[in-house]
Amino acid sequence: MLSIIEQRQSVRKYDPTASISKEQLIKLLQLAGKAPSAWNLQHWHFVAIYGKEAQQKLLPIAYNQQQIVDASAVVAVLGDLEANKKTDAVYDPLVAAGKMTKEVKETLAKQIEQAYTNRQYARDAAFSNASLAAMQFMLAAKAEGFDTCAIGGFDTQAFMEAFHIPHRYIPVMLITIGKASAPAHPSSRLSIEEITTWVNG
Amino acid sequence: MLSIIEQRQSVRKYDPTASISKEQLIKLLQLAGKAPSAWNLQHWHFVAIYGKEAQQKLLPIAYNQQQIVDASAVVAVLGDLEANKKTDAVYDPLVAAGKMTKEVKETLAKQIEQAYTNRQYARDAAFSNASLAAMQFMLAAKAEGFDTCAIGGFDTQAFMEAFHIPHRYIPVMLITIGKASAPAHPSSRLSIEEITTWVNG
Repeated sequence: MLSIIEQRQSVRKYDPTASISKEQLIKLLQLAGKAPSAWNLQHWHFVAIYGKEAQQKLLPIAYNQQQIVDASAVVAVLGDLEANKKTDAVYDPLVAAGKMTKEVKETLAKQIEQAYTNRQYARDAAFSNASLAAMQFMLAAKAEGFDTCAIGGFDTQAFMEAFHIPHRYIPVMLITIGKASAPAHPSSRLSIEEITTWVNG
Repeated sequence: MLSIIEQRQSVRKYDPTASISKEQLIKLLQLAGKAPSAWNLQHWHFVAIYGKEAQQKLLPIAYNQQQIVDASAVVAVLGDLEANKKTDAVYDPLVAAGKMTKEVKETLAKQIEQAYTNRQYARDAAFSNASLAAMQFMLAAKAEGFDTCAIGGFDTQAFMEAFHIPHRYIPVMLITIGKASAPAHPSSRLSIEEITTWVNG
């Protein structure tokens, strides 16, 4: 596992003849969906762009980066701006199974509705929680022998129009997945001293 | 690795007598810092709250959740709202080593400065990229035999004041880390059909 983390690198050159099966991609998306999320609202939605024609459609939207079409598939990770609408779907099965009282569920539902009156909170939560799933997807992919690259540089407006994304969702990143055709260059990292502050005591 | 993903669950009850060494925590934070990020700007900063006195100080800020003090440590994951200021630190070593031309660096620096004129972009990027590192931290922790819980419910304003956080950073989540004192309940997940849209072709 730790070696998977060490070995994962952003790959921008893919073998265009390699492929990923739909079953394999589903398995990775299921693993991604096991990420934690605030109130377990699972603020992610994945758009699996699977097939060369669909990838060609995405190409200009991602500023013609060749990896979009050379990769075996592309997954768009969306964040859910209205994750509060999932409250019943997430909690009702627990209430039905006797694992949560109706009263606890109602208390949680009120907290959630209160939080979602704040649009900035909704957006922050969408970006944060969807990214937890995105990272889990990339690590699961590496463990299964696939390479990935997270892409923030694309025209989100054009993406939403071309792929008919409801305004409930906000595009967070694209992730290309496939087999590297050339090893990625290791990227420089800030030192642990630069990225950490200790509060001891 | 896939079993680590399957087994990681949000643990809210910790063994208060368990501990994590500073070296172990540094190792996990270093692994977290290997997450990908937009332009490799590494938009995360970790505040390691290490020691019972420091954890007690955090307790009321996190609404008196017992896990804050029972955990072996707490890591606050901050997002960097001014990650553009890292451009030189990230790219100058590559230029010095002859791995990137000065012209390419300047082009990237201009793109980055342009993006950071948009404050919403800066905030979205802070939440998204810091969360990638957070997920990697939680999985690395599980692989090393520790349990974690990501916490969104805390008073971010009070946190920034109590721990003297510069306004450059925005708190994204707290993560408790330690040894579970009771097994976590598996949480319900939406089905793969509910979380995925396929664009085939």
